[in-house]
Amino acid sequence: MNILFIMYDQLRFDYLSCAGHPHLHTPNFDRVAARGVRFTNAYCQSPICGASRMSFYTGRYASSHGAQWNGFPLRVGEQTMGDHLRRAGMDCWLIGKTHMKADAEGMARLGLDPDSVIGARQSECGFDAWIRDDGLWGYGPDGYYDEKRSPYNEYLKSKGYDGENPWSDYANSGIEDGQLASGWMFTNADKPANIREEDSETPWLTRETMAFIDQAQGPWCAHVSYIKPHWPYIVPAPYNALYGANHVPAATRHPRELEDPHPVYRAFLNGKISQAFQREEVRQKVIPAYMGLIKQCDDQLGVLLDHLEATGRMDDTMIVLTSDHGDYLGDHWMGEKDLFHDPSVKIPMILYDPRPQADGRRGTTCDALVESLDLAATFVEAAGAEVPSHIIEGRSLLPWLRGETPQWREYVISEYDYAARPFADDLVGCSDDARLFMIFDGRWKMMHAEGGFRPMLFDLQSDPEELLDLGADPACAAEVARLYTLLGQWARRNAQRVTKSDADIAKMRGKSARRGILPFLYDGSEVPEELVENYTGPIRQTHT
Amino acid sequence: MNILFIMYDQLRFDYLSCAGHPHLHTPNFDRVAARGVRFTNAYCQSPICGASRMSFYTGRYASSHGAQWNGFPLRVGEQTMGDHLRRAGMDCWLIGKTHMKADAEGMARLGLDPDSVIGARQSECGFDAWIRDDGLWGYGPDGYYDEKRSPYNEYLKSKGYDGENPWSDYANSGIEDGQLASGWMFTNADKPANIREEDSETPWLTRETMAFIDQAQGPWCAHVSYIKPHWPYIVPAPYNALYGANHVPAATRHPRELEDPHPVYRAFLNGKISQAFQREEVRQKVIPAYMGLIKQCDDQLGVLLDHLEATGRMDDTMIVLTSDHGDYLGDHWMGEKDLFHDPSVKIPMILYDPRPQADGRRGTTCDALVESLDLAATFVEAAGAEVPSHIIEGRSLLPWLRGETPQWREYVISEYDYAARPFADDLVGCSDDARLFMIFDGRWKMMHAEGGFRPMLFDLQSDPEELLDLGADPACAAEVARLYTLLGQWARRNAQRVTKSDADIAKMRGKSARRGILPFLYDGSEVPEELVENYTGPIRQTHT
Repeated sequence: MNILFIMYDQLRFDYLSCAGHPHLHTPNFDRVAARGVRFTNAYCQSPICGASRMSFYTGRYASSHGAQWNGFPLRVGEQTMGDHLRRAGMDCWLIGKTHMKADAEGMARLGLDPDSVIGARQSECGFDAWIRDDGLWGYGPDGYYDEKRSPYNEYLKSKGYDGENPWSDYANSGIEDGQLASGWMFTNADKPANIREEDSETPWLTRETMAFIDQAQGPWCAHVSYIKPHWPYIVPAPYNALYGANHVPAATRHPRELEDPHPVYRAFLNGKISQAFQREEVRQKVIPAYMGLIKQCDDQLGVLLDHLEATGRMDDTMIVLTSDHGDYLGDHWMGEKDLFHDPSVKIPMILYDPRPQADGRRGTTCDALVESLDLAATFVEAAGAEVPSHIIEGRSLLPWLRGETPQWREYVISEYDYAARPFADDLVGCSDDARLFMIFDGRWKMMHAEGGFRPMLFDLQSDPEELLDLGADPACAAEVARLYTLLGQWARRNAQRVTKSDADIAKMRGKSARRGILPFLYDGSEVPEELVENYTGPIRQTHT
Repeated sequence: MNILFIMYDQLRFDYLSCAGHPHLHTPNFDRVAARGVRFTNAYCQSPICGASRMSFYTGRYASSHGAQWNGFPLRVGEQTMGDHLRRAGMDCWLIGKTHMKADAEGMARLGLDPDSVIGARQSECGFDAWIRDDGLWGYGPDGYYDEKRSPYNEYLKSKGYDGENPWSDYANSGIEDGQLASGWMFTNADKPANIREEDSETPWLTRETMAFIDQAQGPWCAHVSYIKPHWPYIVPAPYNALYGANHVPAATRHPRELEDPHPVYRAFLNGKISQAFQREEVRQKVIPAYMGLIKQCDDQLGVLLDHLEATGRMDDTMIVLTSDHGDYLGDHWMGEKDLFHDPSVKIPMILYDPRPQADGRRGTTCDALVESLDLAATFVEAAGAEVPSHIIEGRSLLPWLRGETPQWREYVISEYDYAARPFADDLVGCSDDARLFMIFDGRWKMMHAEGGFRPMLFDLQSDPEELLDLGADPACAAEVARLYTLLGQWARRNAQRVTKSDADIAKMRGKSARRGILPFLYDGSEVPEELVENYTGPIRQTHT
């Protein structure tokens, strides 16, 4: 079996028709959901690209792998699904974005050549790169995510898009009165990108994916990682014009949220991102473009599914559709992601397993509390190996696909490190306290912020839209205490004992009876004679 | 300045005359204490050799570095004081024992040759080895700690001690009626080891240390790591006969401790180690030998100090005297270490700094809550570098030596992973729950055991001998809750963000204003023109 692990960047869990979106029709996402299981309570480990992805790829919590924000390198030697799958005999390829930052200092310290096979995998969080493109290719020293290369920009040049930076001039720009109308500015989000639709990023990566599949020898896992519908919010025709003001839902927000908000929430509310998305004209511009980008993703997913069906791969390939995090889009007066309301932290998660054992659950949903780190465990099991539970903190989702009801976790965790945000200085002064933890048990969602703040708390049973923060409500003190007990239990987890498996340790347990090291005997009569025979008897020689 | 970082294995904090021992006179330990500061509240990070030492060497908690028990390899790439000191221009050498187990699998995965300089340091927890000897060289596949080599055994052979294993036949054996009387058996602890005193382990390692010092070019840090007074409890003449029954203190224990003990404590009480030390004849045999071993250590320390004085090294060398953990010796009905009563978890910690800034505090004590991981930070500061606080979790002790009163921690932590113990199966079934945490705030000491047990709790103010476990006392519920809050705070610590320093992150904060990535603009008028100039203006060419 092969694995097609498809990620869409910043795709909200509820912007799919199978998840109930009232206007956005996504027949190809729905097509996979109809053949698989859609997980309705899936959460990312951190609502930010880099940290979330490192959790997907390592199967470990953000505070376990330590790459807690964009641009924080994944420490050298941290194991990824690539390491585990290759050991199980499955290749592991990358087609698209990872937001991985290599631990160059650590690699140099260990003498690893970045151009060696081992070094290249260390630099790509364990993947072999069919193609790596992190998207965004602006100008200036900080104008891109990945200083190394943009294969997509090179593709554009090869197709005759001229100039130094066709990504910027074409893929990320419309035209207005003969002037560049950049996708960086929300006011241009309704304009068509000045590029042939087939040359835009999503169709390009889909073709790369099909080219990979056509030449691949199984078994393989391919991480197909689309840059869209992540901002910049601009899309080529016809997708720019499919949706309009009548498709923009009212923002999920309430003036009460702005009254005495939690200090961390307030800091985000005061940021330029949230300020922008509090303007209704921004939502009116952005959301139709965001929907257009998703619609293009769905159409391209259809192209890919048709290709799988035509080539027989649909019968031997597991398909996963997910996202690294959501997008507030003005809900809760916020833009982007970063905090823990569902539009930000909840992710789409659809799994299709072609094998007959999965037949009984096709087209169903599962509301188990799923974390993004479960995929690494799922893939290792799918590859036929035992999940190394001393390294991977997630659990395989395959039992759910087979209709089993495994013992399962009682809560999900997500984390956020805001140390690199300028407001961290004012809020907590030191970066170690600039950290947030979400715990959600299926009903109660609490956010703990280091630094002596009260928690945020929502009761999703009575307040599914998370509009009423109960964190300071004395009536909820018992719930808060209970959630802190669970958070403490999680925080003490056994996350770094990565060099000894449970099986290794079980073997050590048996050893004590046959050790040659024999302390704690009084006179040797306590143990069988053969254990002490080397230490008793006549002295052999005499040193003089 | 150089650093002489001397560790005695399993040396109790209170078996020194400067710490108040009534019978054991240790004038050379006292001599260092008279010139330096003795820390009276120093705790090891785990009361077991391997885990404790990895915390000393990395400056990180056991659950941060993950080598939580003997034989659990330290993961490849985990940074040690050797890495930090070499970056600061100071060599870092090993003379003696580390109990390090190399991460052979991880090194192979990264293609590291164990015989390269980098590979050798990875295998020796960051030290260059002047000499490595982990002690214990019995027979059989599990008869030694370190399968690689025993330089000490080779030394004995070179001195004419014959046979396959002179460590076993001479250093670890007395003679009785022409028969081997092995040090493995407590009944032989009063006999003199059948070896010339000068050829026993402690004098041998002292000579190696002086040979190292005489050839070393500064600045250097040398970790001189004696195997003694760790068991086997046997010592050559005259040290075997210096102490007798009249020097054996009554065991610190109370029958009440055996009534309904905490289940984890009970499991240890039922082990063969504790059963042995519950026998008074064992204490009578062992404790005088243990004292003799310490007395020999003290005499050899005198030899070393005299050498330092004679060669001028006393003026440019910091000296640290400490231990990896203590030894119950029958206190609390226990033998060995493993749990968190003071005889096990508290360690001696004496620091001498030759520089004038330390003059004001010579011969004093300091009761600050000190952890063994503070030494790594201390040494980095002593080497003139900034402590990498995103990696090293300890704090430099130098301010205390200078008479400052720095803001300090409110509690110390120690941990223990008993997964490899046979009784783990019965107690918790799965190895992730076989973990213990101690938190001590200077008065209250709590032990939390995973797996749903009540805590253990001692009030050292009213019960300094820790004989009354208050863990189930409803009157202490508030203390327990308070300590759990602190333990949770500790457990959520920022331990794995090791690739980004606070300074790196502070730099990132400033960047947002000058990014080339420009999302969240409405029309570009929000930012200076030069930031958007590449994204505005006439379209440059037209793709056709």
